[in-house]
Amino acid sequence: MAYIDLKNELPGIRGLMAYDQQAADALNGIANVLLCRESSLTKGEREMIATYVSSLNDCFFCQSVHGAVASAHLEDSDGELIKQVKSNFTEAPISAKMKALLEIAGRVQRGGKMVEHRQILDAIAEGATDQEIHDTVLIAAAFCMFNRYVDGLGTWAPSDQQIYKDRAPWIVEGGYTRPGQNIK
Amino acid sequence: MAYIDLKNELPGIRGLMAYDQQAADALNGIANVLLCRESSLTKGEREMIATYVSSLNDCFFCQSVHGAVASAHLEDSDGELIKQVKSNFTEAPISAKMKALLEIAGRVQRGGKMVEHRQILDAIAEGATDQEIHDTVLIAAAFCMFNRYVDGLGTWAPSDQQIYKDRAPWIVEGGYTRPGQNIK
Repeated sequence: MAYIDLKNELPGIRGLMAYDQQAADALNGIANVLLCRESSLTKGEREMIATYVSSLNDCFFCQSVHGAVASAHLEDSDGELIKQVKSNFTEAPISAKMKALLEIAGRVQRGGKMVEHRQILDAIAEGATDQEIHDTVLIAAAFCMFNRYVDGLGTWAPSDQQIYKDRAPWIVEGGYTRPGQNIK
Repeated sequence: MAYIDLKNELPGIRGLMAYDQQAADALNGIANVLLCRESSLTKGEREMIATYVSSLNDCFFCQSVHGAVASAHLEDSDGELIKQVKSNFTEAPISAKMKALLEIAGRVQRGGKMVEHRQILDAIAEGATDQEIHDTVLIAAAFCMFNRYVDGLGTWAPSDQQIYKDRAPWIVEGGYTRPGQNIK
């Protein structure tokens, strides 16, 4: 159970969002902008970045939620593609542009100053736009927040991956909401 | 200048917020909830946590902005208190509760899993409430995002601390807004 009394037994960030609904709405605001708005990066690609960073931060809950959502978007029904991205994205069957963006995301995870102009130029050379690079950096940065929030308060997470897989279509359909919130 | 063409010359996160106003509004939503809402932690205490984490992340822009805002709230006109907190908070003239919360914030900066139940119990023993611990973890986590966003895109920052000091009263008065946004 979490380090503080959340007054609910929901797992991961869901328990935190039920505890502090005002913070939850602000956090879902950023998740919905970054992961669900119109973008030249597909939702699957953006969820892949979120999953990769959550994996680097060793956040079980976030990499399970977003890995399942990424797989749902990417028609990766057995989750093999996402598994490959997490273990070694350079060998995964994804575009050279996505590899360049994941390289930037991995550097953001280690620290903002780990990103050098060189990796930006590599991404541009593979066809990435300024907005795509911007969004990659901000998605990676945001998951350095979400992951720390979830693990820093000692929340629990279901170990059964099927639970995350079963919930993914609801997120694909309705975006990110807090428990009890009406989906618009 | 930043790694991407922001189409403006504003420094730090202000340049990024003018570039992507939709992300800016979501990010300011988080900043305003965490740093400006009603809370048993004063605004000065919360800005102190933000400044300390930004200092650990070596983000010059964020530690300058929030350090100046913290000093404005804390009547720390020469900035000496904030300087002491950044260099060694254990010796600074702040409450034992704030020291326990800064210990938690510093661990969140290193990673969510670095927080142990022991530091939570220490903070509770010094009088911290569950909500205060929650907010400390989320403020620290959020600045791990803001710092990475600002530095990961290679933004520039004015070196003159007077510029931050001159702007602090506007933030104290109006909260966090993006460039060009009407203050409510």
